[in-house]
Amino acid sequence: MKLNCDMGESFGAWHMGNDHAVMPWIDQANIACGFHASDPDVMAQTVKWAIARQVEIGAHPGYDDKIGFGRRSIPHALDAVTRLVAYQAGALEAICQLHNTHISYIKPHGALYNDMMVNDGIFEAIVEAVSGLNQHRSIKLKLMVLARPDNTHYQKIAERYDVELLLEAFADRAYDDTGSLVPRSNPEAVYHDATKIKQQVIELAEGRVTTVSGKTLTFHADSVCVHGDNDESIATIAALHKVLNP
Amino acid sequence: MKLNCDMGESFGAWHMGNDHAVMPWIDQANIACGFHASDPDVMAQTVKWAIARQVEIGAHPGYDDKIGFGRRSIPHALDAVTRLVAYQAGALEAICQLHNTHISYIKPHGALYNDMMVNDGIFEAIVEAVSGLNQHRSIKLKLMVLARPDNTHYQKIAERYDVELLLEAFADRAYDDTGSLVPRSNPEAVYHDATKIKQQVIELAEGRVTTVSGKTLTFHADSVCVHGDNDESIATIAALHKVLNP
Amino acid sequence: MKLNCDMGESFGAWHMGNDHAVMPWIDQANIACGFHASDPDVMAQTVKWAIARQVEIGAHPGYDDKIGFGRRSIPHALDAVTRLVAYQAGALEAICQLHNTHISYIKPHGALYNDMMVNDGIFEAIVEAVSGLNQHRSIKLKLMVLARPDNTHYQKIAERYDVELLLEAFADRAYDDTGSLVPRSNPEAVYHDATKIKQQVIELAEGRVTTVSGKTLTFHADSVCVHGDNDESIATIAALHKVLNP
Amino acid sequence: MKLNCDMGESFGAWHMGNDHAVMPWIDQANIACGFHASDPDVMAQTVKWAIARQVEIGAHPGYDDKIGFGRRSIPHALDAVTRLVAYQAGALEAICQLHNTHISYIKPHGALYNDMMVNDGIFEAIVEAVSGLNQHRSIKLKLMVLARPDNTHYQKIAERYDVELLLEAFADRAYDDTGSLVPRSNPEAVYHDATKIKQQVIELAEGRVTTVSGKTLTFHADSVCVHGDNDESIATIAALHKVLNP
Repeated sequence: MKLNCDMGESFGAWHMGNDHAVMPWIDQANIACGFHASDPDVMAQTVKWAIARQVEIGAHPGYDDKIGFGRRSIPHALDAVTRLVAYQAGALEAICQLHNTHISYIKPHGALYNDMMVNDGIFEAIVEAVSGLNQHRSIKLKLMVLARPDNTHYQKIAERYDVELLLEAFADRAYDDTGSLVPRSNPEAVYHDATKIKQQVIELAEGRVTTVSGKTLTFHADSVCVHGDNDESIATIAALHKVLNP
Repeated sequence: MKLNCDMGESFGAWHMGNDHAVMPWIDQANIACGFHASDPDVMAQTVKWAIARQVEIGAHPGYDDKIGFGRRSIPHALDAVTRLVAYQAGALEAICQLHNTHISYIKPHGALYNDMMVNDGIFEAIVEAVSGLNQHRSIKLKLMVLARPDNTHYQKIAERYDVELLLEAFADRAYDDTGSLVPRSNPEAVYHDATKIKQQVIELAEGRVTTVSGKTLTFHADSVCVHGDNDESIATIAALHKVLNP
Repeated sequence: MKLNCDMGESFGAWHMGNDHAVMPWIDQANIACGFHASDPDVMAQTVKWAIARQVEIGAHPGYDDKIGFGRRSIPHALDAVTRLVAYQAGALEAICQLHNTHISYIKPHGALYNDMMVNDGIFEAIVEAVSGLNQHRSIKLKLMVLARPDNTHYQKIAERYDVELLLEAFADRAYDDTGSLVPRSNPEAVYHDATKIKQQVIELAEGRVTTVSGKTLTFHADSVCVHGDNDESIATIAALHKVLNP
Repeated sequence: MKLNCDMGESFGAWHMGNDHAVMPWIDQANIACGFHASDPDVMAQTVKWAIARQVEIGAHPGYDDKIGFGRRSIPHALDAVTRLVAYQAGALEAICQLHNTHISYIKPHGALYNDMMVNDGIFEAIVEAVSGLNQHRSIKLKLMVLARPDNTHYQKIAERYDVELLLEAFADRAYDDTGSLVPRSNPEAVYHDATKIKQQVIELAEGRVTTVSGKTLTFHADSVCVHGDNDESIATIAALHKVLNP
């Protein structure tokens, strides 16, 4: 079980996140690509930190919406989504190449991620971007998506394009009895207790999850998304890292 | 002798240029990469037109300045210039890959081009971007720069990074007796007469140029930059194409 | 009956519209304010042209979305809509003041206009912007909205804020038997025939409209929106001007 | 002697500054206007905090350069500078009007401020913006500029436009024997010691300044610029406030 974290979300003079402090404890860095956050300098700095800690680098493309931080769903034609993702992934790949490394996966950000998970067309448009880039790569990009109890539908689409999915779960989000995330509107949606978060990650690593109602579901995930917003959450990530890499 | 033209300079709902009409007559399309002009959709459309006419594709990166169209010199740290160029070239490369093609050179735009030609540091920063990307490419990117009577200085820097230069001359710009472009502040700087433009390109193809004072200089260029602003100039480009490809 | 036209939609080096040619024939210029189109220089130029032809100036604020030209609905909190509109109106008012004139109304643009007409909350948020600015103006701003057969609902909201509405109809859009615009998805939605357009404006000036089915409805509008996209449509606007100002 | 501080420098999801904590201790808030920093929502929030503490509001316009935070000098035509400043001041004035208050001065930001102090043309272009807006205001805007030992030259230009200048000094910047700021390249340029900063403000309030060489100069300033970057500097501002408002 890997740990992934959104990174490179600073922009110009504006600082966001604790990338340098989080980097030692994660396996995969989802680096913003300049559309919803980041800029070429922030990207380069984050890539250097990832290299120093041997962290895999994924492109984290979002809608072209800095003021909304990529959190607002913005209507796009489907082929425009393919280009939006390819553009950003290509830009980060180039920054990686300057530092003699490569991206290895793509994880859409914010509203683009949410739209992908509820709209087959948008998902397929993103798969097409990954597939189009993979035609020219020896090491193929994977696509990180939300793990659901049954991922068959999206996996079939991805297989048609020969794209491998990485299924991600969330360390601090409650799951309901269908294996879906409890919506953020529900006060029980987010776990703040480090013990609870650690327990959920241990269970996910063993292929299951305990739902808000206390039921245990079989649940497969390849990676767990963590957030390093403050000292406390960074300590939690470090603890998760030690549990998963004993 | 090749003909190159700046392309893909539309942006969202704003249309600029006559890319579709010019494409049949040129050899190299310098495609804007979304910083001073263009967007992922415009880039994809321009790439498709270039493919249809078997036109080589070059990245045309500029300063991040849409409102100034990349024509204003904006101070950057040198390593920021390297990233600026790599980011944009990588983004266009990705759009190309979606269409199963590749960029083959980089030509900086506007103020970045001008700054590169007067500032060794900026030139070297751009060479570093090309070189960094080339470590990961089987077909190496070249860098298009202004042809001068003596290109030794820049060629030496480029050779240190194993980067090949493409020297470009201008079809419609007057040269002075030193082999430099007559500054635009001089009323004689730009040729508007199609016959004069055609004659200059024929001479350049033969390795020489006639200066404003009537002197003939030996002058080497690999490509001539043309502009397709209106029906008349497109007709001139078509005529140049026929002269060069009899 | 007045004629209004969207103006000032150029941006930096990108030119859009025929503002100078249209200005002599219209009464109200809806000038973009720099969020979906325009910039301080374009705004100043358009203001000068409006002054020269004694055309009323309205602020034409849109969503902050140049690449989408303000045509994409972007989620906003309601108080953010109020600020979005006030910001842009204030900016154009300042440009007007440099030229010793003032804006006299606000007409939202594109997706913001459409959202306002289907969402009471957004409409009221915009009315609040107008009202907030009017507390500090001797000559009160009006708000231009889509004329519908029954405008009572929006008029009541506007009255609560002491804001006067300007009802606009469209010269080239077909109306259905309910007095609504035929949706653009319908091939009969837009009139291209100058005679038909002229006839519709004459009828609107007389307080009625003939629907696509041939029925005549009573219909009140204060202004008719026209588009000057090309020589033909500019000629149509000139003809409308002459009909309305015999 | 007043204390002024740059405020409203957050942008979308990116937070900068400690506006809420600094506001009780200052007299004048220079609020960014959306070009180098800020957005309509940040502006509104900052205006509300200023009102709550009865702090005067000034527009703090900068070059249109978020990624450079307005710190890079970007070439502009002089009349474009006038519009740039008027646009931003008008936008903030409108946000103020929503909250039933007004801006009372303009202080250019960053590179625009520096350019104004070394280039008469840019200074005059900004004075023209202030003057143009003042034609339509009962309470006139002032223009905040760098206090120099002799301000006659700029005051004469400002008087021609009937614009009053506010002269600002810096609490934490060393002055040389000519009364100029010691350049930042000099290690002695910035005072970090709270006692030294307090002493300088007390002297400035008494119309003099002690230079790096220990000389005392007569020096007039109307306001002192302070920075509230961290808890320590906020404590210093609070102490300055108490000294100046015993």
